[in-house]
Amino acid sequence: MNNNTFGSLFQVTTFGESHGIAVGCVIDGCPAGIKLSEEDIQKDLDKRKPGEGLAGTKRKESDTAKILSGTFEGQTTGTPICIVAYNENQISAHYDSIKDLYRPGHADYTYQMKYGIRDHRGGGRASARETLTRVAAGAVAKKILQKEGIEVMGFVKSIAGIECKKYSQNDIKNIYENELRIPDLSVEKKIKEKMKKAIAANDSLGGIIQVIAKGVPAGLGEPIYEKLSAKLASALMSINAVKGVEIGDGVKVAEAFGSKNNDEMRIEKGKVIFLSNHAGGIVGGISTGQDIIARVAIKPVSSIAQKQLTISKDMKNAQIEVIGRHDVCICPRAVIVVEAMTAITLVDALMQNKARKF
Amino acid sequence: MNNNTFGSLFQVTTFGESHGIAVGCVIDGCPAGIKLSEEDIQKDLDKRKPGEGLAGTKRKESDTAKILSGTFEGQTTGTPICIVAYNENQISAHYDSIKDLYRPGHADYTYQMKYGIRDHRGGGRASARETLTRVAAGAVAKKILQKEGIEVMGFVKSIAGIECKKYSQNDIKNIYENELRIPDLSVEKKIKEKMKKAIAANDSLGGIIQVIAKGVPAGLGEPIYEKLSAKLASALMSINAVKGVEIGDGVKVAEAFGSKNNDEMRIEKGKVIFLSNHAGGIVGGISTGQDIIARVAIKPVSSIAQKQLTISKDMKNAQIEVIGRHDVCICPRAVIVVEAMTAITLVDALMQNKARKF
Amino acid sequence: MNNNTFGSLFQVTTFGESHGIAVGCVIDGCPAGIKLSEEDIQKDLDKRKPGEGLAGTKRKESDTAKILSGTFEGQTTGTPICIVAYNENQISAHYDSIKDLYRPGHADYTYQMKYGIRDHRGGGRASARETLTRVAAGAVAKKILQKEGIEVMGFVKSIAGIECKKYSQNDIKNIYENELRIPDLSVEKKIKEKMKKAIAANDSLGGIIQVIAKGVPAGLGEPIYEKLSAKLASALMSINAVKGVEIGDGVKVAEAFGSKNNDEMRIEKGKVIFLSNHAGGIVGGISTGQDIIARVAIKPVSSIAQKQLTISKDMKNAQIEVIGRHDVCICPRAVIVVEAMTAITLVDALMQNKARKF
Amino acid sequence: MNNNTFGSLFQVTTFGESHGIAVGCVIDGCPAGIKLSEEDIQKDLDKRKPGEGLAGTKRKESDTAKILSGTFEGQTTGTPICIVAYNENQISAHYDSIKDLYRPGHADYTYQMKYGIRDHRGGGRASARETLTRVAAGAVAKKILQKEGIEVMGFVKSIAGIECKKYSQNDIKNIYENELRIPDLSVEKKIKEKMKKAIAANDSLGGIIQVIAKGVPAGLGEPIYEKLSAKLASALMSINAVKGVEIGDGVKVAEAFGSKNNDEMRIEKGKVIFLSNHAGGIVGGISTGQDIIARVAIKPVSSIAQKQLTISKDMKNAQIEVIGRHDVCICPRAVIVVEAMTAITLVDALMQNKARKF
Repeated sequence: MNNNTFGSLFQVTTFGESHGIAVGCVIDGCPAGIKLSEEDIQKDLDKRKPGEGLAGTKRKESDTAKILSGTFEGQTTGTPICIVAYNENQISAHYDSIKDLYRPGHADYTYQMKYGIRDHRGGGRASARETLTRVAAGAVAKKILQKEGIEVMGFVKSIAGIECKKYSQNDIKNIYENELRIPDLSVEKKIKEKMKKAIAANDSLGGIIQVIAKGVPAGLGEPIYEKLSAKLASALMSINAVKGVEIGDGVKVAEAFGSKNNDEMRIEKGKVIFLSNHAGGIVGGISTGQDIIARVAIKPVSSIAQKQLTISKDMKNAQIEVIGRHDVCICPRAVIVVEAMTAITLVDALMQNKARKF
Repeated sequence: MNNNTFGSLFQVTTFGESHGIAVGCVIDGCPAGIKLSEEDIQKDLDKRKPGEGLAGTKRKESDTAKILSGTFEGQTTGTPICIVAYNENQISAHYDSIKDLYRPGHADYTYQMKYGIRDHRGGGRASARETLTRVAAGAVAKKILQKEGIEVMGFVKSIAGIECKKYSQNDIKNIYENELRIPDLSVEKKIKEKMKKAIAANDSLGGIIQVIAKGVPAGLGEPIYEKLSAKLASALMSINAVKGVEIGDGVKVAEAFGSKNNDEMRIEKGKVIFLSNHAGGIVGGISTGQDIIARVAIKPVSSIAQKQLTISKDMKNAQIEVIGRHDVCICPRAVIVVEAMTAITLVDALMQNKARKF
Repeated sequence: MNNNTFGSLFQVTTFGESHGIAVGCVIDGCPAGIKLSEEDIQKDLDKRKPGEGLAGTKRKESDTAKILSGTFEGQTTGTPICIVAYNENQISAHYDSIKDLYRPGHADYTYQMKYGIRDHRGGGRASARETLTRVAAGAVAKKILQKEGIEVMGFVKSIAGIECKKYSQNDIKNIYENELRIPDLSVEKKIKEKMKKAIAANDSLGGIIQVIAKGVPAGLGEPIYEKLSAKLASALMSINAVKGVEIGDGVKVAEAFGSKNNDEMRIEKGKVIFLSNHAGGIVGGISTGQDIIARVAIKPVSSIAQKQLTISKDMKNAQIEVIGRHDVCICPRAVIVVEAMTAITLVDALMQNKARKF
Repeated sequence: MNNNTFGSLFQVTTFGESHGIAVGCVIDGCPAGIKLSEEDIQKDLDKRKPGEGLAGTKRKESDTAKILSGTFEGQTTGTPICIVAYNENQISAHYDSIKDLYRPGHADYTYQMKYGIRDHRGGGRASARETLTRVAAGAVAKKILQKEGIEVMGFVKSIAGIECKKYSQNDIKNIYENELRIPDLSVEKKIKEKMKKAIAANDSLGGIIQVIAKGVPAGLGEPIYEKLSAKLASALMSINAVKGVEIGDGVKVAEAFGSKNNDEMRIEKGKVIFLSNHAGGIVGGISTGQDIIARVAIKPVSSIAQKQLTISKDMKNAQIEVIGRHDVCICPRAVIVVEAMTAITLVDALMQNKARKF
């Protein structure tokens, strides 16, 4: 029911269009007494910013977070936290030439069909700028998870089929130090070449982002329809450009044998351990205590400067070339968004669990 | 928030354990004046029944639907529809030997961790028997969709990696005529051999189910967090054993080029058409008017009669062999469940759209 | 959104018509490990039964609760608890003569306008029989409140303006021992005479029910729109025949002075005390730690055997006389319903509070 | 669940503290294509402003609405509408002297108990300034109701027991022309004298506000727990200082006879009419097509400059005198708030009804 709201107990409502006055979110249900500053949020917003390199858009965006409510003397008060980022440097005129054309792969046509009206400037509400507000809310969620010893880490698993294969836990921790957000630098060159070729061809690329949550206790997730996996699937599929969501071994389970896919259990030094984690830390919709592992498949950026067939608002055939400063691949910038949605989902699940401890 | 409820306007709440007195659902928000009989529901429940062949469990289940409320003189009245199926032929004693052991791949351990207590008989609430109630609700949803000219069709796309490749629309319509629910009978023999081998090895298999919804108008789905894709992802990931959800080209988009992945548009005979459907009928979370296409990856059945390492409730190492009448692959029986969840999701999206037409 | 569901974390969904097969409820979100038997529920259902005396309906109702799911070995498991009461002794033929007439004061006309169809037998879904399911859910809620030391006690405050004035805490505890559910037996005779007169005149009476919750800790209730007072108001106004809801001094505050209405505070023996409780234990929508006090005004029973002007389904003027075994005043039987809705509201508020303790 | 959100389909989420940076609301679910300007909102906000006369606070508040999102070229786009009013002229220092004292009748103590921290400045989130955001959202709701021919009109029914008795429909339409918002100017003098006395005595007064909705079609409201009456009760009881909510004859039904309280029906000139409206336009939780009538009892303002007993944050006995520019009676300014909550409730009910028309 909550179309622009995510979460049940930790509820994030977002608003704003790409070229309107501001984008923002209201976080309702945040516990009181969490230390929170604008810097905490800015730190994550900066990870979403376009870089200077290949993966960047070259355009300047103002992504400065401002807290309008819900904190007092550096702490949350339990009341709704409104965070806004005012839009600046948005030049709407850039979009004038295509305001009556539907860009293939974009939500132009579907918004028009749904609402009969749309703010065409920069994609309006369907713009990736909306993800800024997810990241802001995610930053708050992470502050809460921290208190529970839970850490959420995303990274680019592959771009255009070129996959990171060898990496350590530490490589994952440091992914924000490289532009591609990859833990396996041995494929960096290959990916960059692929990107350069795509740029040269006025084309774009997709990829896979993986997210791992460490320290999640067993017992999170609410059967049947609020399984942790279902909630995560909804959270991640709601991100722009995501077309597939996998938990643990994901689509590969379709080719596995039960004898291989079941994660066997042991007691070691008095603690429960699993001998594998094909399940990605979720069985029956409830966390097992192992790492939560999820992946999303991101489609190639829809805005390309090639001539494409399309139609106009007045139902005539047309051609379009989407010229502008577009990312060749959104994956590096989307990592922090995936982290954010995962963090929000986990906080919500934690709260659900606490609610019923009598 | 609605752990055992799915949907916002067309709300399905389910209850019941595998070996309790009954399983059932309450459908709240069904429009008044829909013709509905127990036969309408039974027809779909029968598609979920184990067959006599390879894919069946050989056990007899009583899947007889009874409507307790919400209809009057053969029509829905707008009040909640409660449908129950009483449990019969459930022999709980079968589970006595494993009541203190956690079956690998099953939700035994996670339920215990979450609730501190569990009904171990037949998997309790985590049993696939719960899907019966989804199918019952789905049958009601389909009656509503029918009025809008929308049809939902599922089928088994692959089992153990053996994929249906050549099939027509008509083949899909007839899938309930073959035991495997596959539209491409040329792979039937190969799949059955694979299944026989798995049975002989006391092992199990996974697979892929695809669902197509035809006749869905453009404009369904509510940005941002209730995108049709996100809602579908949640609906489908909530089904037992699902580990991956894809929309349209799904995980393959990660390797595609934008120039290839964008679906170009044309006007033909005054109507909008798309030259391809990589998007699976959903762009920006809103239906395009094309076929909605989704897929789920189903893990191999967790119950296998091989010796597996596990632990006991009192935290000791143990071994387990899950003996009983288990399906070797759940995919054929899960097709109607996938259809049901898709139908419920679409009815909900339709209602959302109607709500805001002023 | 949850039309037939009450509560957010402790969610009660009810179903069933007066003369259908059954009425029932599904309780989702009940903590695991609560001892619960059918007797626990029956005890409260019996308090809702018509008595043999003046306040009774003389008709026999089958109010036997059956638990279909959610418990195992005498304890709740955390899964949905379905409770049903099958309808028996319901003679639908009694309603044949009025099936096309709208009874004044009843929901006949409004249901017809809303749904275009209605189950006229015994009032269908709008029948007071629906309150049985609230009482069943309330019985479960009370088991949870017990663990937290919270007690909910309702009583009839007045009937037809004849008010209970002198009573002790103990009188309230024993109200189920008298037929009128009044704590002040000094007005019993006067009320009974009024009732007899009304019965003789084929008329009916209204009254006031008060509910007190003791032991509620300070801090329950969620500003702004889920204030404990707002949630209670919704819970109580949703009960059939309720036309007014008051918290604490209620409508009388409109004539009070601030200096009188403010509840002053003191520390006594290290504990916070209030010198009065005009607020009814709720300030700013949050519990103060004092007794929660609420009242509902119940309208006189709509079914009366006097000739009344009405219209028929085919839009013609008509007269109606509602003959049958109707209560002259519903208040005594509604006390337990008011308790139930209060208990459910409090459990929900408790869970909300627990959810956000980090 | 939605603590700071009201409504299911037309959802209003509000945020902000009295002396923080801003207060505001996000309206999610507003239909596309509604003409909406900042002036539309400002017009209602101005009705909430303190007057220059007796009922005013004499303090200056900045109540300027700014739309941050959700409109394009003067129309709503179907995306969330964020409206903010930045706080200005708020002098927090005024509250320094009482920051560690709990003001009797205020939510100071309960917020502290709930959250363990509170923004004491001007009442923080519990301040009446929060109602500004309700009025802003209400202004949007009214634009939608207008399209359906529904009008919502509130007025002060009584102050300190002095009741408006003789007034016409037209008097109600013009209430914003008099400072007291009363339709019966014959009591104006008497009320003003009462107010002057209260001011002289450093005391405050309560009152009753009535709201009427005209043009509401039969069939709105969703049984059982989302009855139009229950939803209204929740909406109105959530307003600061409300301690009682009545529908139609309200608490007086407790003293009525069924024969008098039932609203008889007739067909006149082919249309359904009722011979009375004791029910206040709602029967069985569903609108009858008559005027919807509701009333709220408002407690006297808690802030009074008399010495009152209280306690301090460090649990010591203390005295407090709340000095400042406080209203002697909040009723005149609350009329528009009552209208707003009623309008929001009705829009939501309208949408629910539309959703299920198949």
